[in-house]
Amino acid sequence: MKKENLALLCDYYEYTMANGYHLAGIGDKVVYFDLYFRTVPDGGGFAIAAGLWRVIEYIRDLHFDESDIAYLRSKGVFSEPWLEMMSNFRFDGDIYAVPEGTPIFPNEPIITVRAKAEQAQIIETFLLLCINHQSLIATKTNRIVRAAEGRSVMEFGARRAQGSSAAYMGARAAYIAGVAGTSVALSDKLFGIPATGTMAHSWVQIFDDEYTAFKTYAEIYPHGCSLLVDTYNVLKSGVPNAIRVFKEVLLPQGIEDCSIRIDSGDITYLSRKARRMLDEAGLPKCKIIASNSLDENIIRDIIRQGGMVDGFGVGERLITAKSDPVFGGVYKLVAVEDEKGAIIPKIKISENVSKITTPHFKRLYRLYENETGKAIADYICVHDETLDGVTELELFDPQYTWKKKTVTDFTARELMVPIFLGGKLVYESPHVEEIRAYCMREIDNLWEEVKRFENPHNYYVDLSRKLWSIKRELLDRNGSGK
Amino acid sequence: MKKENLALLCDYYEYTMANGYHLAGIGDKVVYFDLYFRTVPDGGGFAIAAGLWRVIEYIRDLHFDESDIAYLRSKGVFSEPWLEMMSNFRFDGDIYAVPEGTPIFPNEPIITVRAKAEQAQIIETFLLLCINHQSLIATKTNRIVRAAEGRSVMEFGARRAQGSSAAYMGARAAYIAGVAGTSVALSDKLFGIPATGTMAHSWVQIFDDEYTAFKTYAEIYPHGCSLLVDTYNVLKSGVPNAIRVFKEVLLPQGIEDCSIRIDSGDITYLSRKARRMLDEAGLPKCKIIASNSLDENIIRDIIRQGGMVDGFGVGERLITAKSDPVFGGVYKLVAVEDEKGAIIPKIKISENVSKITTPHFKRLYRLYENETGKAIADYICVHDETLDGVTELELFDPQYTWKKKTVTDFTARELMVPIFLGGKLVYESPHVEEIRAYCMREIDNLWEEVKRFENPHNYYVDLSRKLWSIKRELLDRNGSGK
Repeated sequence: MKKENLALLCDYYEYTMANGYHLAGIGDKVVYFDLYFRTVPDGGGFAIAAGLWRVIEYIRDLHFDESDIAYLRSKGVFSEPWLEMMSNFRFDGDIYAVPEGTPIFPNEPIITVRAKAEQAQIIETFLLLCINHQSLIATKTNRIVRAAEGRSVMEFGARRAQGSSAAYMGARAAYIAGVAGTSVALSDKLFGIPATGTMAHSWVQIFDDEYTAFKTYAEIYPHGCSLLVDTYNVLKSGVPNAIRVFKEVLLPQGIEDCSIRIDSGDITYLSRKARRMLDEAGLPKCKIIASNSLDENIIRDIIRQGGMVDGFGVGERLITAKSDPVFGGVYKLVAVEDEKGAIIPKIKISENVSKITTPHFKRLYRLYENETGKAIADYICVHDETLDGVTELELFDPQYTWKKKTVTDFTARELMVPIFLGGKLVYESPHVEEIRAYCMREIDNLWEEVKRFENPHNYYVDLSRKLWSIKRELLDRNGSGK
Repeated sequence: MKKENLALLCDYYEYTMANGYHLAGIGDKVVYFDLYFRTVPDGGGFAIAAGLWRVIEYIRDLHFDESDIAYLRSKGVFSEPWLEMMSNFRFDGDIYAVPEGTPIFPNEPIITVRAKAEQAQIIETFLLLCINHQSLIATKTNRIVRAAEGRSVMEFGARRAQGSSAAYMGARAAYIAGVAGTSVALSDKLFGIPATGTMAHSWVQIFDDEYTAFKTYAEIYPHGCSLLVDTYNVLKSGVPNAIRVFKEVLLPQGIEDCSIRIDSGDITYLSRKARRMLDEAGLPKCKIIASNSLDENIIRDIIRQGGMVDGFGVGERLITAKSDPVFGGVYKLVAVEDEKGAIIPKIKISENVSKITTPHFKRLYRLYENETGKAIADYICVHDETLDGVTELELFDPQYTWKKKTVTDFTARELMVPIFLGGKLVYESPHVEEIRAYCMREIDNLWEEVKRFENPHNYYVDLSRKLWSIKRELLDRNGSGK
């Protein structure tokens, strides 16, 4: 597929700042930015990291062509030396990131960028929009998949997605987080995500009657034949016609793998009635698929009320994360290097306490209890600290520091891995199937309490004593303005 | 800009249906589809049509390259004759549409497609996703712009947009609906939408202190200089440092055009305090810009409480239409042609009454009162009806038919215009500035009652007596299943 040139898909202020750094003589000052988020959407207990693959493609290919430079020059505010630098732009910094599919928690770094100021600045917008969008959809999808309790969930949202990339990249994020497939053919072609789907109401309407429409379809697509039964009347017309066609066309061929889809009305009621009709007609293997503005709450209700649904097609509420459609990832300066290469931690205070940053170049560990394999806490420390060989660790709440806990018999795994070093790509994105399997395993490693849909247990994300002290000291020093 | 090949950005079932039509011998049967929506997001009184420009590009360029055909063939269910047809695909039907920027109402056609069944079907997904996304953002944006009561609103949402096209095409939709500009450089380059923006917190943090950061910036960008004052403490540090820099750097050059931006804390309180400080410092022309999770409700509160804000930077809640992030446009079969070219109206019933379609190939008129120029009703009739020369018209509610009203002294304007005829593009998309001006004029032509933010007046969208009778008759005939 041809690539769009998205180099200028960037907030204009990144360029005014980058040109400013350049003119102020600090364009090549080495800086550290963390990308992280502050709250889990929908009040959930964890999010799922996604979008790194797209970030990698973007960084690897990032350059500014003649038309881009001409556009920037036309604004009349950018200096020629900076435009010259931009026309030869290649990213040559370091990027560390949490792999896609990893459960992630508020206020821990998902990506850390170490680069020249003028480079680190202009990749901000694209990094945020990729990670925010794809993590949003992965996080929402996994709620829906968990609500379905093992029944299959299909991503059907393309027509209501917020633009083209929201549709086909959203399908990828959804697949990582557990859907069985998508409706989007392009996502199948590009990423190998199984695309499925059978008929719309238009198929039924275009024929003179519903029976003829169903029969024609079943004759063309006998295997896995799925008939949409709500164009006229589900129970009086759709299901009886579907049964007649399955018996006339499929059973004589020995085909039992078929389904009906209900796209309107009371799914619980209709699915129970339809199930009985199918069973009585000798079609116990015929599945019932439901669609129509579903989400995790409606799916849980349908199951709780005894709806006989085997699979869910979920559209707009998944692909837009309708109930909470913003993933609030931010990208904040956490350190700079001085002339001698010493790392100076930086903090942003803010009137809103929740917007205060955790300074410094950091490492992120996840601690797993050896006995159960469950994740018990994440632990953030300064880059020059390590948990190698550490067998006992005191954790304390960074806000309520008297809340302490000592952990032993754990395994620590470092979550952020090098992606680019000195501009060189040193990481290979796994295939989407592998990412999906990793995601499912890592979610299995979370305690049920963290996975509650509402009021989940607050998973521990703690700071090392050294990091906590540095943050404390910077807060004291800068708290009253500067 | 290179174009992505988005031909397969399409629900898979469009292809199974199209192949099915082909094999059933009705692939070239002429059909009519309407694209319309059912409810205005956020409980508003009207929506704004956007996205047609992108639909035109898509239809004009639509073809399937070798890799697309190879993908389809690999699924093992598509026939060679159909794949052959697809590899030579060119759209050769007719498309009529309401121009971008038009206020639109539920249940009236926004786009009508007349084409061979196998063509009309496979353009469904992309048409819907374009129109749904861009109309969503235009509709939401206009609420925010109206809430600001003449103060400028800037679109700052790229980093929280749902993917790349949501960001840069969302900015275009926002501009049509009234924002003064965007943060996205790409939208400026591609569409000529003014991009602006000055600095992030990182600019302030990267320098040793806030004063130096501000001073350096003002020296590089003295004209329209905007300083972000909330990195440490707005009133104790940010505003005093900004005042000092404006006085030291700008005033000696005779420059008074400057601003501060507040991105956290209580905007009303901080803006009032800051206004007084700026005025007392002799900077009455320095503007105050607010950002931080704004939307129409927060903006109305800030204004009502006397906040001294001159402009608003609106991000995530605009670019995702956070409060109601789905525009529920649908694409429904409304008629087919028989062998003799006679148009046979078609209906879809549904268990949900709101999902019943209005059948037939139709015209859409907007009636303007001659005395005031205000729009009084939209009127949908059968394609062979016209309002040419009609001076008196009885309108009646299609649901409560006893509610009648006779209108005289009106001007009728046909809203849908031909876009493609026989596959030929016969329409030229106006420049985005012209679309924006048209949108602003047409919104001026709506009564205030229709523009209320909550519980607006229900604008009349009525059917001609002939169309109503046809719908009634089809309902009676099909209501009990088929």
